[in-house]
Amino acid sequence: MQRYHAEHAFVDGAWQGDVGIDVDAGGYIAAVQAGVPAEGRERIRGWVLPGLPNLHSHAFQRAMAGLAERASDPADSFWTWREQMYRCAAWLTPDRLRIVASQLYLEMLEAGYTHVCEFHYLHHAPDGRPYAPLESMLDALREAAAEVGIGLTLLPVLYQTGGLDGRPLAERQRRFGSDLDTYLRLLEAASRPLHPHQRAGVCFHSLRAVPEPSMRQVLAAAAEELPVHIHVAEQEAEVEDCLRLRGRRPVRWLLDEIGIGPRWCLVHATHVDAGECAALAASGAVAGLCPTTEANLGDGLFPLRAYLDAGGRWGIGSDSHVCVSPVEELRWLEYGQRLWHRRRNVVAAEGRGCGEVLLQGALAGGAQASGVRVGRIAPPDARGAWRADWIVLDPEADALAGARAEDVLDRWIFAAARPSVDAVMSAGVWQVRQGRHRLREAVSARFTRLMSDFAARAVAGQAD
Amino acid sequence: MQRYHAEHAFVDGAWQGDVGIDVDAGGYIAAVQAGVPAEGRERIRGWVLPGLPNLHSHAFQRAMAGLAERASDPADSFWTWREQMYRCAAWLTPDRLRIVASQLYLEMLEAGYTHVCEFHYLHHAPDGRPYAPLESMLDALREAAAEVGIGLTLLPVLYQTGGLDGRPLAERQRRFGSDLDTYLRLLEAASRPLHPHQRAGVCFHSLRAVPEPSMRQVLAAAAEELPVHIHVAEQEAEVEDCLRLRGRRPVRWLLDEIGIGPRWCLVHATHVDAGECAALAASGAVAGLCPTTEANLGDGLFPLRAYLDAGGRWGIGSDSHVCVSPVEELRWLEYGQRLWHRRRNVVAAEGRGCGEVLLQGALAGGAQASGVRVGRIAPPDARGAWRADWIVLDPEADALAGARAEDVLDRWIFAAARPSVDAVMSAGVWQVRQGRHRLREAVSARFTRLMSDFAARAVAGQAD
Repeated sequence: MQRYHAEHAFVDGAWQGDVGIDVDAGGYIAAVQAGVPAEGRERIRGWVLPGLPNLHSHAFQRAMAGLAERASDPADSFWTWREQMYRCAAWLTPDRLRIVASQLYLEMLEAGYTHVCEFHYLHHAPDGRPYAPLESMLDALREAAAEVGIGLTLLPVLYQTGGLDGRPLAERQRRFGSDLDTYLRLLEAASRPLHPHQRAGVCFHSLRAVPEPSMRQVLAAAAEELPVHIHVAEQEAEVEDCLRLRGRRPVRWLLDEIGIGPRWCLVHATHVDAGECAALAASGAVAGLCPTTEANLGDGLFPLRAYLDAGGRWGIGSDSHVCVSPVEELRWLEYGQRLWHRRRNVVAAEGRGCGEVLLQGALAGGAQASGVRVGRIAPPDARGAWRADWIVLDPEADALAGARAEDVLDRWIFAAARPSVDAVMSAGVWQVRQGRHRLREAVSARFTRLMSDFAARAVAGQAD
Repeated sequence: MQRYHAEHAFVDGAWQGDVGIDVDAGGYIAAVQAGVPAEGRERIRGWVLPGLPNLHSHAFQRAMAGLAERASDPADSFWTWREQMYRCAAWLTPDRLRIVASQLYLEMLEAGYTHVCEFHYLHHAPDGRPYAPLESMLDALREAAAEVGIGLTLLPVLYQTGGLDGRPLAERQRRFGSDLDTYLRLLEAASRPLHPHQRAGVCFHSLRAVPEPSMRQVLAAAAEELPVHIHVAEQEAEVEDCLRLRGRRPVRWLLDEIGIGPRWCLVHATHVDAGECAALAASGAVAGLCPTTEANLGDGLFPLRAYLDAGGRWGIGSDSHVCVSPVEELRWLEYGQRLWHRRRNVVAAEGRGCGEVLLQGALAGGAQASGVRVGRIAPPDARGAWRADWIVLDPEADALAGARAEDVLDRWIFAAARPSVDAVMSAGVWQVRQGRHRLREAVSARFTRLMSDFAARAVAGQAD
């Protein structure tokens, strides 16, 4: 048992002082008690918060962050960004993916994410043939997560068609595609207990990539406790296609035809009408919001205020990783709403500042979408113990200078242009100290070499 | 003469290699030449860019960054934020202002700003009586800028009325108010050459705070080479008031009645119609855009695409300092446009990525609004030399790993969640090395003590 003493810890939604936290050998919290002496415990200076779950990641896209900001075509949109993404995807092998994912997951930990849901569709070789073993790409992600010590919900993606009309996959989509049998083998591989703090979930790429019968068959075959993730209603074109071909908007179609509940994470769900918004909230599913990627792609804004009024659950994802910072996701989630409604403090509630509402929402929804016991610093309850995932904010960070406890969350989320995360524990292990991951030097050097190679190939015009 | 050798420098809008830069004893660039050997020169590793001018700052508001994110009033708006701001303003003395401004200006340098336009209206004691000497608050700002080594355009603000209807100042606005004679004495004090790299400019708080005759008298009395700054059209309520009381929208009124040109910086100018947008662009004035503050306040979005199409000039300001990062200002300036237009790469041009367009716009417009020769790394020309203000991006920063020159600006502006500025030179002096200002420890400790005192007073309910 490891025993810690936190000067200040955010315990079950409130700041407490002199908090003793005991962590068992498996990396779970065995006991939490406020007002205990520090003697005999490892002291933690600063503001201790639960680590943030990142509910949506495409790890490989980290390799192209910032490389698609230059097309001058006035009709440029999500769809031209997708071309760039396909080029990057074509270059990746299992070894390269592992190097990119290790760097990304390390950056996540340094930024304050301690768990990630990996929405993974790069399953096969570029020509569509399976790797040997089949799960080589899944293993690359699992090894990366285990190496740097971030919790992982691995979501192998079912990807079968090139559009809602059922057209076959395009040439560049071939490595994404799997028949049902192959998909279930991937899901089984993702579920094997190779590393601690890793689990699997079911994943459908989108309505345009998964025919209805396949969706039903996978749901019938998969274990009921697995989370289910899907991209939905990110683009207006998708809503128009769905209305034309299925007579309903995408989220409405899912609600009516498939039936969604707390297992589900609907990623983006940007374009919902008032009825879909209320029904999604009532379903108990999680809306997977990715504010920086959705802004980078020009997607639009999710109707967060109405959704919160209806009791909706939500979390954040860094998605394309053009930004790896939970603070920037949360800040601009709120700012998007302020610009839309032309008023301040849109998510604030009676006695709760925007920072607290945002943090608590992202913790609870992110944990639900991840299907793991994270997002709280609290003693075990009837459902079991909480994983010892926490981050420590530097009390001397510019944004927190001289702060009172009640102002810490607002100041961190709204006023911290520089990172304020000093230390990070994931599953009972300190992975980050003084803002740096224990493996930063080696992991970053490897990543930089790989990116130099990627850049050189871009100059030479080589796909691989 | 100091001689430098930059591995890569952004010279007059293009990346060049092995760039020799000579800096004279006054802190200006005497010569620039690409392709020179490094021998006998101080070597600079990394990507060297001009430092960014910050065209709009209210330094004192740094003390309240992140402290106004909690009102739960559904009618909350700019105007309730203003109440918080008045409370903070009431607490400030010249000594306190100097401590806050030193911290802020140091943070600006670390973030990549090397010059700041200080829009300063906290002139007098809280009861409205003048300090002795009159310019005590101006001096506090000048000392802060000189201490940490940032260039300063000091803009004493004329503030006379409490609304467009000419009503007198409210109680809490009394320390802002000056008669014309006092104002001109403040302007004269700001113009005295106390410290190098500091100059003055004329400043009107807003149409609601400055009656038309006062504006005309100040413009007639002030030297013609001084820049002129004004807040305008930030809030829709202001546009409505102006339409009702003056029969025209605020920017239109300024264009028609006062006549604006390249000396002018119209701060915000958020709510302009198509005609105002085109006329503002044609005037040669600078639009002073403050994306993070405008988002924090829920102001709305400036029509940047149409303004660029009309050849408009613009720059960025950190304004309330809820964010001190030129990268976040530029990134979210573009992202706001993407969310509005629902497409990507809104500001990109033929052969020029978003990052380059944004950086060049902010450098040129910021320099124009500052009235100083900054924003370029280039040899002297017919109008004189350019100040030696530059920033060095760390080639090993996550966002820049393995980058090609053509991708550096996009990757820095769009993909850098963590700061990438390694070193900063302002007026020929290295103020920041390895990401830290040379005075960080002492300045931050002083600021932290002050903020602890501010927090304690808030708890005790004391105004001062």
